[in-house]
Amino acid sequence: MSDGDAVVETIVRAEVIQQFVDQASSLVHETVLHIGKDGIETRAVDPANVAMVDIQIDAAACESVPNGSFAAGIDLEKLDDYLGNASGDDPVSFAFNPEDRTLNLRHTNREFNVAMIDPDSMRGEPDIPNDLELSVDVTLPADEWQDAAEAADLVSDHIYYRSDADAGEINVVGEGDIDDVTVTFDGDHFAEGSEIGDSVEGIYSIGYLLGTGDSSVSGFLKPIPTGDLRVRFGEEFPAKYNYEFAEGHGRVELMCAPRIQNS
Amino acid sequence: MSDGDAVVETIVRAEVIQQFVDQASSLVHETVLHIGKDGIETRAVDPANVAMVDIQIDAAACESVPNGSFAAGIDLEKLDDYLGNASGDDPVSFAFNPEDRTLNLRHTNREFNVAMIDPDSMRGEPDIPNDLELSVDVTLPADEWQDAAEAADLVSDHIYYRSDADAGEINVVGEGDIDDVTVTFDGDHFAEGSEIGDSVEGIYSIGYLLGTGDSSVSGFLKPIPTGDLRVRFGEEFPAKYNYEFAEGHGRVELMCAPRIQNS
Amino acid sequence: MSDGDAVVETIVRAEVIQQFVDQASSLVHETVLHIGKDGIETRAVDPANVAMVDIQIDAAACESVPNGSFAAGIDLEKLDDYLGNASGDDPVSFAFNPEDRTLNLRHTNREFNVAMIDPDSMRGEPDIPNDLELSVDVTLPADEWQDAAEAADLVSDHIYYRSDADAGEINVVGEGDIDDVTVTFDGDHFAEGSEIGDSVEGIYSIGYLLGTGDSSVSGFLKPIPTGDLRVRFGEEFPAKYNYEFAEGHGRVELMCAPRIQNS
Repeated sequence: MSDGDAVVETIVRAEVIQQFVDQASSLVHETVLHIGKDGIETRAVDPANVAMVDIQIDAAACESVPNGSFAAGIDLEKLDDYLGNASGDDPVSFAFNPEDRTLNLRHTNREFNVAMIDPDSMRGEPDIPNDLELSVDVTLPADEWQDAAEAADLVSDHIYYRSDADAGEINVVGEGDIDDVTVTFDGDHFAEGSEIGDSVEGIYSIGYLLGTGDSSVSGFLKPIPTGDLRVRFGEEFPAKYNYEFAEGHGRVELMCAPRIQNS
Repeated sequence: MSDGDAVVETIVRAEVIQQFVDQASSLVHETVLHIGKDGIETRAVDPANVAMVDIQIDAAACESVPNGSFAAGIDLEKLDDYLGNASGDDPVSFAFNPEDRTLNLRHTNREFNVAMIDPDSMRGEPDIPNDLELSVDVTLPADEWQDAAEAADLVSDHIYYRSDADAGEINVVGEGDIDDVTVTFDGDHFAEGSEIGDSVEGIYSIGYLLGTGDSSVSGFLKPIPTGDLRVRFGEEFPAKYNYEFAEGHGRVELMCAPRIQNS
Repeated sequence: MSDGDAVVETIVRAEVIQQFVDQASSLVHETVLHIGKDGIETRAVDPANVAMVDIQIDAAACESVPNGSFAAGIDLEKLDDYLGNASGDDPVSFAFNPEDRTLNLRHTNREFNVAMIDPDSMRGEPDIPNDLELSVDVTLPADEWQDAAEAADLVSDHIYYRSDADAGEINVVGEGDIDDVTVTFDGDHFAEGSEIGDSVEGIYSIGYLLGTGDSSVSGFLKPIPTGDLRVRFGEEFPAKYNYEFAEGHGRVELMCAPRIQNS
């Protein structure tokens, strides 16, 4: 797991690793960090296998990367606590000692020795499929998509993503027992390169998006920072979300399985 | 209830209807909105018949009013949710479809179809009496009156309004089992035209004013915006409160029955 | 308890008495205020006899002091409530009427009559010992010491204060079952005159510092304002904390007994 016995150390800015932790902890409590010469990465799937996330911080976004690499199973809530008062550009050091399998975390004037979880005892890491036919591929402001999900949440536990290829529109719809809501996105909202290739519909559980209801996750849309969000979906297909952080050297891909409608 | 079968639509700025909703929901969960060529109005009384409110938005405060009119029984909490991200000058459209008796609510990029409550199944609308002899009639900053009620709430569930015509003062008093508090308002606090015609006393339940204790209402003083508040009371008489919003085109009258003292 | 029967009145700025109340209420719910020509003072010890506080406001920090003096047993939560909307330079008057043993509290446009607790029925006032051998005596930013305690609290209920006389460092350490944390303070953090005379260790309960866990106190470090904090400790000795407020005319001394380690 490491190149020899030397301590391997990666240094990354506090705000970069904080975004990583916030996004990962929206789906899982523990995850495996892959830390090494390529940067930092994790892939995780929620306990019910509905939502997956892949988060990458490039070496270019790190202040320093080692030659070796290691995989550290870690409790994300603890890591979040330990990052505590570090902020902005504060350098945060992750050093792995292969001898005692502890992670040494340092920032500001503090140092933590953190017991790791054996990656082998943890859930396997998911592969996010890349061959889905997602005929809708639009980029829009992340906070507007979050707001639309919140509007649907007012009337229902489920959300419909509907594209109208002719109108060049997407409707985000909540259909409640009594009331319904439609939030419309059109050319005014979409960034260059957005494409609505077909008129399709997907249904998703709002709990995964926002952590509402009796959801076991805290909602993967919520940690997404202000800025561009790429949203893709297809007829009864998973929806995918992508965004960048750390000046483009951090990348997140999220995928959420659809609910299949009873016919 | 509508002039013919055409849809009747009223458009009003978000901040104006929000004040309307905030004030109405301080006393009741549901109310009947009268929407039409004269603007928007509601009158409501709390379940225990202690506090009443009449809220009017003039046609002049609306962006657009219909020829017809309609009465819509509505759940105020839902309406508050649905107004959600609309703010400031955002136009909010209320359109009534007499065919299916639904309310179509539109603002920003969203549209809600809202089931209405049959006004006939709801509580009758109260008339706020206009012939009360209220010898105290002062106008002062709303937040100072709210603060005085909060001070009284620290020691008691009831609040005394006492005027001293000779001193030109009003004392807002809380008398607890152990401690008591007196908040004094005098000429320094009163706007032009304020009048203290007699030395009188009224006692009121603080729960209705602030929603504290085991009150069933959320407190009608709390939604009152910063600015002038007219307060009137008389010896063992109801107290009346009036304020304006929407540049004077919105008007609120509140009335609260006194508690009668055991002699 | 008073010089004759005249009412004795002390006037002090709201922000000064507020700091007094905040600090006192971090350890006890009730305390005896000594109010008179020397200013205002209280001494208190928490119910478990672990932490003590002595708070003094000099006459120079008061707007007005009486010739006489009095001792008033008072409920600190009530006093905090009653100070409510007074802030900054607002003068707050404490007037004691020896006839009916009530405290008359006045500020802004309000006046409270507050029943006092008989000081004789209350717990005796502690003496903070002055003859402790505390070989570490450093002054540093209060918020950094609070932050260090919070870091230790992430992993443990106890905190180690360790000095390294050779390195000129203090380590604040939390040792949990699984993880540990070390926060280091060195010459960069210490104000002029700081001294680390020996390499010593003291252990303290974090509950008293921060009010965390099932602590009966709300944490005496928390009300300490931004600014210099003097910290003293010795080998298995109490730790002492001192700070000033009200431009140096207010003084606080806190003392916390150590936990004795099992050997």
